[in-house]
Amino acid sequence: MNGAQSLVATLVDQGVDICFANPGTSEMHFLAALENPKMRSVLCLFEGVATGAADGWYRMKDTPASTLLHLGPGLANGLANIHNARRASSGMVNIIGEHSAAHLKYDPPLMSDIEGLARPLSHWVRRAESSSTIAWDAATAVAKASGHPGQIATLILPGDTSWQQAGTSAIPPRAAATRKAPDAARIEHVARVLRSGERTLIILGNKATRGVALERAGKVAAATGARLGSQFFSARIERGAGRVPIERIPYAVPLAQAFLKDFRHIVTVETSEPVAFFAYPDRPSLLKAEGTLVHPLVEADEDSALAFEMLLDMLGASATRPTLQPRVETPVPSGALNPLSIAHALAAALPENAIVVDESLTTGRETMGHTMGAAPHDLINNMGGSIGYATPVATGVALACPDRRVFCMVGDGSAMYTIQSLWTQAREGLNITTVIFANNSYAILKAEYANMGAGAPGERALSMIDIDRPRIDWLAMAQSMGVPAVAVETAEDFYRALADSAREPGPRLIEVRLY
Amino acid sequence: MNGAQSLVATLVDQGVDICFANPGTSEMHFLAALENPKMRSVLCLFEGVATGAADGWYRMKDTPASTLLHLGPGLANGLANIHNARRASSGMVNIIGEHSAAHLKYDPPLMSDIEGLARPLSHWVRRAESSSTIAWDAATAVAKASGHPGQIATLILPGDTSWQQAGTSAIPPRAAATRKAPDAARIEHVARVLRSGERTLIILGNKATRGVALERAGKVAAATGARLGSQFFSARIERGAGRVPIERIPYAVPLAQAFLKDFRHIVTVETSEPVAFFAYPDRPSLLKAEGTLVHPLVEADEDSALAFEMLLDMLGASATRPTLQPRVETPVPSGALNPLSIAHALAAALPENAIVVDESLTTGRETMGHTMGAAPHDLINNMGGSIGYATPVATGVALACPDRRVFCMVGDGSAMYTIQSLWTQAREGLNITTVIFANNSYAILKAEYANMGAGAPGERALSMIDIDRPRIDWLAMAQSMGVPAVAVETAEDFYRALADSAREPGPRLIEVRLY
Repeated sequence: MNGAQSLVATLVDQGVDICFANPGTSEMHFLAALENPKMRSVLCLFEGVATGAADGWYRMKDTPASTLLHLGPGLANGLANIHNARRASSGMVNIIGEHSAAHLKYDPPLMSDIEGLARPLSHWVRRAESSSTIAWDAATAVAKASGHPGQIATLILPGDTSWQQAGTSAIPPRAAATRKAPDAARIEHVARVLRSGERTLIILGNKATRGVALERAGKVAAATGARLGSQFFSARIERGAGRVPIERIPYAVPLAQAFLKDFRHIVTVETSEPVAFFAYPDRPSLLKAEGTLVHPLVEADEDSALAFEMLLDMLGASATRPTLQPRVETPVPSGALNPLSIAHALAAALPENAIVVDESLTTGRETMGHTMGAAPHDLINNMGGSIGYATPVATGVALACPDRRVFCMVGDGSAMYTIQSLWTQAREGLNITTVIFANNSYAILKAEYANMGAGAPGERALSMIDIDRPRIDWLAMAQSMGVPAVAVETAEDFYRALADSAREPGPRLIEVRLY
Repeated sequence: MNGAQSLVATLVDQGVDICFANPGTSEMHFLAALENPKMRSVLCLFEGVATGAADGWYRMKDTPASTLLHLGPGLANGLANIHNARRASSGMVNIIGEHSAAHLKYDPPLMSDIEGLARPLSHWVRRAESSSTIAWDAATAVAKASGHPGQIATLILPGDTSWQQAGTSAIPPRAAATRKAPDAARIEHVARVLRSGERTLIILGNKATRGVALERAGKVAAATGARLGSQFFSARIERGAGRVPIERIPYAVPLAQAFLKDFRHIVTVETSEPVAFFAYPDRPSLLKAEGTLVHPLVEADEDSALAFEMLLDMLGASATRPTLQPRVETPVPSGALNPLSIAHALAAALPENAIVVDESLTTGRETMGHTMGAAPHDLINNMGGSIGYATPVATGVALACPDRRVFCMVGDGSAMYTIQSLWTQAREGLNITTVIFANNSYAILKAEYANMGAGAPGERALSMIDIDRPRIDWLAMAQSMGVPAVAVETAEDFYRALADSAREPGPRLIEVRLY
């Protein structure tokens, strides 16, 4: 067994059994090691697809995937979606191929400071020094990535570490992945706040927006009158009919301020108090009203399910029944496509247990509330704000959940960053419906131009915002990578295309023509 | 005038009059400042296109372009082609938008360590602290980027620096861009080596492969019997009929060793002694034979034209006539497409003064010698080895040289990394013929798999190398972004498509079907 084989064997032994790969010459022994039948390899034609897919995998599985990237530039191409994954608290194990140690002193063309490139966005970085210790390194990387919250672990794999013989390899004892218990005094304090009857918003983040934590949060809300909210962007929310509903703090600063202004208290759960996404010349960074008090209930590394259990005990409310979202049957819309009819079409078409990956920006983000009463589903957002996240994340999500339909809602400008995802979706036959909102513009920037106090964009500025020359032919784009596609120009056609796509296996693309 | 306007005004005053932009919310004031009619803005749909285009611009102009990128992740997406530009000694001024200073302490979603991401691949990094000093910062960045060799200068632009008033701004005095004179003793030493009559290879790098430096190198060769060589990859070579010919050191280690083995001396000019591109288990890193002596003639920051003038003086050979490449009329090939017939078609079709950007890897790189006797042209290579460089670089090259036809020779796998370039090429009506070598495979990796001693790839490894499921439909891909395209399956059709493309303005794509 050589170092590469030892690495792959350790990854699968530790539960990391998928690798999103974009290999190069220095990773040939790793490719050979991928013959290990326990490891699934998924080829991506661009590294940002690989890292985004690993993020999507984690969001659904709560366990890390691995990526295989080619030296410093390969890592660099994956960094934007590593940033997004990091902000989503997704765990990920990146294997970065590197020249053999003896070759580095000659400064060959592909050499760069891989550690330097990895550190700003990784929680843990290590250069594997020997084929006999790579198993230890790999197990450590998996342990780091698997913690709560998930972490970005980056392991640099020199060629000689890969190709030399490994011998017998020790690995560190596997620590149970635990979440810290929250501080009882802090919970007691929040219980007092909630008993005060003063208006309180409980903001749920990371893993508190789903499962038993969300159910218990719903009981707290029902027992105390507190409201449940989320940041505008969340890693994954279980929502729709029968779920505990969560209110979404708006994106735009004035709307967020209006939403928050009446709360005397904000209680945070695995998140922090709301902050504006961008800085604007005449607007605040913090969104709460003056005088609103912020109370952390659960820190990022703590267990929110346990915290809510303790809180319910203190409140004597364990038996309270949470208010659940009723099913709202949305009639199939017709006529013009606009944000509202688009949201209605989605609400009507969403099949049971679907997963929505949302990067629809101007088109979808203000109207997502209309899908609250749809069939139960998961909603995934971009936590890091680096656009080009949706199509890769949907790719990983679909691989993690092959029995569920994935709807990837993405603006045309955003989709172009990582459009190579479509090829992997076709190759793997993934059940993804990619919805392209084609307004031929970075439309969000038109609003932001005014928000920034830059006035109305002039001709040259506008030419940097509109992407209508040439207009992207989305049907041809989908065809080029083997994804069947259709364009729609009415709400009823959009609904039909969504519903049709959910009935057939494999990827589909719908171009929603907004021009 | 606000900070952004001061920045743009300074850039154009200092001679940087093009900006390859992919803007976001934090760069709205910069967009507004782009209304400055002296600055040309070129929109790119992915940041790697912007940085690669800036590289291409520099290769033809020898002066830097600017890029506009959106925070840390936007920079990250541009890093792979910054790596390639750095290895090509191309100067570049990157402007990276950033949150305003007051917003950073809240750790907003898009925040990252921009300096940390920039430093590994930039020669100079600065965070602009104030709108009144940004002009100074910008002028410093341009001066750094404009040195010899060119450098990567990265200027981080916080929102408040952008939107606050600039007042009167000082800028540093403009230093004349000079190249250092080489050391006379070193030149004398090389003159002695050349007079010895022992077999000598003079390896030309960076700016020594063109213009007066190349002419003078040709005189030295003619006078002394030394041979002229280049590394396998060069930033730009002026070649073809009437130019001083340069022999190319082969890529594959055994071939490079065979080429170099008979030389007693290697003289280096703006480059170093030849090194293997990758490390292999049983092959050396250094390619020269044992006993070969290496003599640096011109260091990277020195003036090779001056060095050769001094050398010719010492040799008393200033009046020698260099041997020039004769015109070789290549007959139009016919029949099957293979590396040889492809090279012949290119040689026959190249119009006078064309520019070839080569990333053809397995298909083109071993046969480029067959175009040595074609009409005079420039040849540009990937110096950093991060693939996905050719289509962006061709974009910048075509903008720099609107009157010349650009041929971008690229493998299908490579083209997919930064395929968004096609859109900018269509938008700007650039005279680029993109030639896609469609072998549906990362074919180079099949050879490298064996070179690495990993044996024959098994089924799973092969599935990470072949990209034929699905086969990319290149005609649809080109159509999706507004580029007219044709597919060819014979050498005569390939020749005709090349020749036709050169007669019409605007971009074209030719899919060369190798399957």
